[in-house]
Amino acid sequence: MPDALAAAERRVAQSGAPLRVGVAGLGTVGAGVVRLLRDNADVIAARAGRPIEVAAVSARDRGLDRGVALGGLAWHADAAALAAAPGLDVVVEAMGGSEGAARALVEAALRAGRPVVTANKALLAVHGAALAELAACSGAALAYEAAVAGGIPAIKAIREGLAANRIARVAGILNGTCNHILTEMRTRGIEFDVALAEAQALGYAEADPAFDVDGVDAAHKLAILAALAFGRPVDLASVHIEGIRRVSALDIQLAAEFGYRIKLLGLASKTGDGVSARVHPCMVPLASPIAAVDGVFNAVLAEGDAVGRVMLQGRGAGAGPTASAIVADLIDLARGRAAPVWGAEALEHAPAVPMACRVGAYYLRLTVRDRPGVIAEVTGALRDESISLESMLQRGRSAEQAVPVVLVTHDCREDSMRRALAKIEGLDAVLEPPALIRIESP
Amino acid sequence: MPDALAAAERRVAQSGAPLRVGVAGLGTVGAGVVRLLRDNADVIAARAGRPIEVAAVSARDRGLDRGVALGGLAWHADAAALAAAPGLDVVVEAMGGSEGAARALVEAALRAGRPVVTANKALLAVHGAALAELAACSGAALAYEAAVAGGIPAIKAIREGLAANRIARVAGILNGTCNHILTEMRTRGIEFDVALAEAQALGYAEADPAFDVDGVDAAHKLAILAALAFGRPVDLASVHIEGIRRVSALDIQLAAEFGYRIKLLGLASKTGDGVSARVHPCMVPLASPIAAVDGVFNAVLAEGDAVGRVMLQGRGAGAGPTASAIVADLIDLARGRAAPVWGAEALEHAPAVPMACRVGAYYLRLTVRDRPGVIAEVTGALRDESISLESMLQRGRSAEQAVPVVLVTHDCREDSMRRALAKIEGLDAVLEPPALIRIESP
Repeated sequence: MPDALAAAERRVAQSGAPLRVGVAGLGTVGAGVVRLLRDNADVIAARAGRPIEVAAVSARDRGLDRGVALGGLAWHADAAALAAAPGLDVVVEAMGGSEGAARALVEAALRAGRPVVTANKALLAVHGAALAELAACSGAALAYEAAVAGGIPAIKAIREGLAANRIARVAGILNGTCNHILTEMRTRGIEFDVALAEAQALGYAEADPAFDVDGVDAAHKLAILAALAFGRPVDLASVHIEGIRRVSALDIQLAAEFGYRIKLLGLASKTGDGVSARVHPCMVPLASPIAAVDGVFNAVLAEGDAVGRVMLQGRGAGAGPTASAIVADLIDLARGRAAPVWGAEALEHAPAVPMACRVGAYYLRLTVRDRPGVIAEVTGALRDESISLESMLQRGRSAEQAVPVVLVTHDCREDSMRRALAKIEGLDAVLEPPALIRIESP
Repeated sequence: MPDALAAAERRVAQSGAPLRVGVAGLGTVGAGVVRLLRDNADVIAARAGRPIEVAAVSARDRGLDRGVALGGLAWHADAAALAAAPGLDVVVEAMGGSEGAARALVEAALRAGRPVVTANKALLAVHGAALAELAACSGAALAYEAAVAGGIPAIKAIREGLAANRIARVAGILNGTCNHILTEMRTRGIEFDVALAEAQALGYAEADPAFDVDGVDAAHKLAILAALAFGRPVDLASVHIEGIRRVSALDIQLAAEFGYRIKLLGLASKTGDGVSARVHPCMVPLASPIAAVDGVFNAVLAEGDAVGRVMLQGRGAGAGPTASAIVADLIDLARGRAAPVWGAEALEHAPAVPMACRVGAYYLRLTVRDRPGVIAEVTGALRDESISLESMLQRGRSAEQAVPVVLVTHDCREDSMRRALAKIEGLDAVLEPPALIRIESP
């Protein structure tokens, strides 16, 4: 059945008949897709080998002005209708959210053997494993270039461009809001709260910023990248997630002094032990290409055994970049270019490596009372866990006052560091919660 | 006929039967492909949906140790035999060179309807238009991911990933040898001749370096990128080409003082007037992402109307990266993923815009006799061509001695600058040929 469906799709792809698209959701993304398919209809048809036409749309409010003409299109108030509406070749899901109407539509379409193109990272991160199985059962394509890093063709690059490689690692700046906030904090020396408020005023951050600044959005994208890079089902639950709320202007400044820049990275790597995946603020060497990716830009880095490190950067959000990625998926469908959802039919089931097993260097900033013996107590706690120091910085000396002490360790295990940190936090002379930032060279 | 062939290929792709590859040329690239197909056979088969096997090879010296076992493979002394040898699904051309055996093999294979995968940028740049027509006639695929920027999936990113965009511009650091030499010159303050000799000793540059350092190799790759980005036949003859022999350590140092870095870029852009394509040393702003790509690394940047600027970076040469790209093309063939050679069947025939029409800023370094009136003569020559200055730097003053003068202009036309330069070169007080470097912000 799947093969027969795929063969039928390919016959249509050969025929030159238009690819008829149903677009569910007419917010920024959905309206952007409708607009791009019209504005660039000529080049899109040339590259797709046939026209790509919007035949139906679905959105709640029919009266709203979306800046794009919608006359002549079949209109469905209920998105789920697009899964079975006659005369459609593919559904674009541009509603968002991991549950509700978006999930219902995607499930129904895939069950019916209708290809789906989506930008919905939350849906894929939470339900991607089950959706990929649905797609495999019916032979319908599930394409999601727009779900990770917006307009950057990162999914295609990893799934097809680096397909000859065993991929050891993927990493990225996956959330433009966080990268913008960190860039503003660094270049202007402002604190997180100020930068966030400004980003909200500019529309770069939501009124409820938790999804972005707590690392959840980046974790969704990382879970998808890791599934693809390592050929295994999406596993969001095993992603360690920390956001950027605790990054201070002082740490950003000290990072520069030590030769680092602070970035919120998603990092996934595969070793003999399994797959580790984590999102947290990192200190990356200034000379590292990813350190130079600033503002709202995103970057995705992949390391393959044959190719070495490849990095892609560009705009990770916005109507244009997102529509660019969605329409690229539509062009692939129009050409009959297919790929399994996670890059391979047979998936691996590598175990998840817990965060406690992370091995790497750490930046630790303490605020201590300036009295004799404090450094000995702190370094003693590290020594007890066999953690050795690469460098130490103590700023200023003034009796009975709080002074910052920065320690940079050699590689050690996360659980060792956690135990040492618990001891250090308990010391009388340590006045504030320590700042801990992991050092990474992706 | 092409459709029937394509359909037949797709039936095979569905069948799970191995894709049988003939490899012509067993130098670094060919042997690298054979090795990668073996080393990563499991992941390659998983991603290709079926095994990819080397079934035949061709090279002159059968006795040579190539570091990879070749027993059991059909051996052809004449590469052309692979075009028609039974039992092969695809030919990998890894011999190189725009003429001779490589060209004969690729032409014969395409004529016979046999897909070709090649890393041969010279062949594509010189004969790509005719080869694409041969491929279109017989319906055979001609894939060349490895021909541009080595392991970076730049061809796929532009052809498929950005397919929804009108591309206004492509640019890149396309020759690792030149980028390595310029990086060494900058970081160590050495002159071109010294850096070249060292690169030759390290194997980064050929004994005859002209192909690399005179910009020819970069021009080949740019011609291919421009054909793909703008959907038109390859047109190497219209590419303006300058190499890096005349870049001096002094200019590199002065560039830094003005906030620039010197890079050899390939730049192609499309406007209403047509397509301009050129390779020459450029001063790029230090904050530009491409300025940070150092050493042997390559970068490819594309600007689309929907996506904005996307940049990819990675290793542009070497056995591993090149094999990674070639095998990615084989995996596409194994999956039945097809694309027209230049991204679209119907090609545009935009006229070539001559170099004389370039509009941009210029860095001009003169060595002048330090006497009254010299600056007035120089700036007068610029004024006569309506060229205005953004900044000027004069270093040192010592009567009757040669002093450097640096001028940075506002945007002007290349032909105006050329006329002004001819006048300036003719001035008595101008002691050496001026150094002219174009300023670009790709």
